[in-house]
Amino acid sequence: MKEAFELDARLHADTWFVADWPLSTLLMMDHAAIPWFILVPRRAGLRELHDLGSDDAAMLARESLVLARAMQAAFEPQTLNVAKLGNIVGQLHLHHVARQPGDPAWPGPVWGVPAERGLEKNEAEDRMQRVLGLVERLG
Amino acid sequence: MKEAFELDARLHADTWFVADWPLSTLLMMDHAAIPWFILVPRRAGLRELHDLGSDDAAMLARESLVLARAMQAAFEPQTLNVAKLGNIVGQLHLHHVARQPGDPAWPGPVWGVPAERGLEKNEAEDRMQRVLGLVERLG
Repeated sequence: MKEAFELDARLHADTWFVADWPLSTLLMMDHAAIPWFILVPRRAGLRELHDLGSDDAAMLARESLVLARAMQAAFEPQTLNVAKLGNIVGQLHLHHVARQPGDPAWPGPVWGVPAERGLEKNEAEDRMQRVLGLVERLG
Repeated sequence: MKEAFELDARLHADTWFVADWPLSTLLMMDHAAIPWFILVPRRAGLRELHDLGSDDAAMLARESLVLARAMQAAFEPQTLNVAKLGNIVGQLHLHHVARQPGDPAWPGPVWGVPAERGLEKNEAEDRMQRVLGLVERLG
């Protein structure tokens, strides 16, 4: 029997659900100061980018590009961090983080720096709608 | 006149040159404890993954996959970190880091944690030849 995909409990706890895209579930980190989105391919048991089949790899690249362009337009970051780590949560997931000089982790990495404040529901909805609107326009 | 590609001075200082691949220059961080390779697309002025043209994006994905498979076989890491940051060095470059429980930065990110020791020339050559040999076999 094929194992069913189930979102990692820690990813679930730390994020807002945004959308299900063709391959990946799009999540938003509960982090007021830093716009931070995560793509999680809905494939059970996947841990590494290099384990993706070639069709899935191309689709993830496409979803990442669309997300990155929308985040660029929405947040005009100094730079966008795009990263697969997996040290703590083994389930394959790809971070997209809009970085600005002066954000709470700048110029270091964001991972391991706890959010000082999460998002209120209306703030979370505003942020995700802004990105989704740009995905529609730019994607 | 078109701007010529020139490797960022900090990347040059922190790494060993490994090879010029079709799109990217392959570098190895001077870090004894952590196997860490970097792909730098030889395109002047590039800063973001989403600014790559579609042919270059496909080539970088291919080069990254080949490198990742070779690093997986060479180092059998717990997980491979694959990341574009750009907070400190703006020139587009893609990190590939073989992570193991107990490495000096585990389970945190490697960026911003200085290497306790760099590599002797023979160690550096052994490590890069091991990866390049696997690239030939697996690529």
